[in-house]
Amino acid sequence: MQSFTALSTAFENYFNRRQFPESPANLYDAAQYILQVGGKRVRPVCVLMGNELFSELEPDAYKVAAAIELFHNFSLIHDDIMDKAPLRRGMDTVHIRFGDSTALLAGDVMLVQAYEQINQINQSYLSKIISLFNQTARQVCEGQQLDMDFEKKDAVTFEAYLEMITLKTSVLLAASLQMGAILGGAGLGNQQHLYEFGKNLGIAFQVQDDYLDAFGDPKKFGKQVGGDILSNKKTFLLIHALEASSPEQKATLETLMQGNDPDKVNKVLQIYADCGVEHWAASLKEKYFHQAMHHLEETAVISKRKAELEKLAQYLLQRES
Amino acid sequence: MQSFTALSTAFENYFNRRQFPESPANLYDAAQYILQVGGKRVRPVCVLMGNELFSELEPDAYKVAAAIELFHNFSLIHDDIMDKAPLRRGMDTVHIRFGDSTALLAGDVMLVQAYEQINQINQSYLSKIISLFNQTARQVCEGQQLDMDFEKKDAVTFEAYLEMITLKTSVLLAASLQMGAILGGAGLGNQQHLYEFGKNLGIAFQVQDDYLDAFGDPKKFGKQVGGDILSNKKTFLLIHALEASSPEQKATLETLMQGNDPDKVNKVLQIYADCGVEHWAASLKEKYFHQAMHHLEETAVISKRKAELEKLAQYLLQRES
Repeated sequence: MQSFTALSTAFENYFNRRQFPESPANLYDAAQYILQVGGKRVRPVCVLMGNELFSELEPDAYKVAAAIELFHNFSLIHDDIMDKAPLRRGMDTVHIRFGDSTALLAGDVMLVQAYEQINQINQSYLSKIISLFNQTARQVCEGQQLDMDFEKKDAVTFEAYLEMITLKTSVLLAASLQMGAILGGAGLGNQQHLYEFGKNLGIAFQVQDDYLDAFGDPKKFGKQVGGDILSNKKTFLLIHALEASSPEQKATLETLMQGNDPDKVNKVLQIYADCGVEHWAASLKEKYFHQAMHHLEETAVISKRKAELEKLAQYLLQRES
Repeated sequence: MQSFTALSTAFENYFNRRQFPESPANLYDAAQYILQVGGKRVRPVCVLMGNELFSELEPDAYKVAAAIELFHNFSLIHDDIMDKAPLRRGMDTVHIRFGDSTALLAGDVMLVQAYEQINQINQSYLSKIISLFNQTARQVCEGQQLDMDFEKKDAVTFEAYLEMITLKTSVLLAASLQMGAILGGAGLGNQQHLYEFGKNLGIAFQVQDDYLDAFGDPKKFGKQVGGDILSNKKTFLLIHALEASSPEQKATLETLMQGNDPDKVNKVLQIYADCGVEHWAASLKEKYFHQAMHHLEETAVISKRKAELEKLAQYLLQRES
């Protein structure tokens, strides 16, 4: 299998052209804008990797990879409208640049364009791919709704948060890998192992994301440490702290969340330390990483074909081994 | 062919069940809400009629009809957000009842659900139906964007307005009929005639809608006559009046549009009368009606099979003959 870098370049070569007509420019320029902002293209490369695990890289894999990237950007545009987010990847969000209405429509045409890419593949796989795509699209929408519901709730259980994160972020990674596998002619068992690999990897990645926001090295992390704490964002860490803390710690935590204490970040981090949150989060990430690797091991192809997927998992989770 | 009423009942029997899962309720109750508000179901019945014109009514036609109705409701939900519309079919719009974010997401899952209905049909037609569906979905989005663009423009030409209306409203009627024809095994020529029948019928219907808003009998019209005039809505009538009026009439019209004259409706109607707008609009509607009927005549099936489509056209355009 080719490396992530090689497949990422190959995908960019396929994808780096205008995906939309010229007119009406007000609509399609907005849609094109977010695609040019870029991103790591992890999900589409996962389609290619899932495919190359089982066969020569199929031309159809690029089409499905493009569909996945279009879907991902559709969901970013609409999520950013809902979250009133001003920035994405360091640039204006689509609705800030083009207005809410055009952003909404640009998301809509991007979703349609995703199905158009899928509709170009070999008909023998069409229905299977659409079925998994639809299931995943529904789940991503459900995850976003749960996320919004949770914002309004005082208490969210670990299990509920895990379900939300799985739907909102992990199933798309999982489905990307499985779609590649389907196009590669993989059997259902192998497809499912690869799906579970992606799903668990996605969860581990989210745990790490939450962890780094609190405990990361500010020089390496690339954004403000403690940002989640300042904005009272529900994270794996906060939810565990609220569940694991003593009544006194919990009361302090809730007071800190409601107030504007200038030393809020450090005080919350102290409670996290007292509750053993750092160690717990590190263990949780390891748990999902190991579950992911277990499913990759169980995938019935020879080991050396899996090396690049292992490397990708290590890279995403910033692990030395 | 069965009557509109019979096919409408048959469609309701197929469609009148929950289209979405129970949970998360905040998302799916919003999606289900607009479907229960109802509507005339003209587009899905057109799928069934297009199908029955060429074959026995196929079970797949109900699935495509459901997809069309889901797509139509998706576009209504998103359009209502963009237009900040408070009411739809006499009820709260989805975003008024459930909030903008949930309405946006409910539209998204409805579009996905449309593709899921399509994905249940016989695979031999799947790619063709999706291709036409995608083209139509893009066009409807383009029409909505053009409509928003036009709101901000002082002058819109007749041709530009016609293109916008065609995209925003007529192509979906046209595609509904063609999809039914595809499932009925119609040849490309017949498909295209049926598409043009629907497209021209849709335009004639929109001309009539604009006409009735200005010249309709308030007792029969069911909404305030002159509403379009009061809100300065660009309509076939206003665009023609601006193009056909003398410089003085045009200046008066523009002054009336900018001001709050309590007799605005009557004064604008007087200019419409002076410019011959009423007669022009009636002729325009006739022109598109006749173009529609011409394409129905050219469709190569025996005449008596077409009777119910003729009746539907007469009914939609409120014509005695």
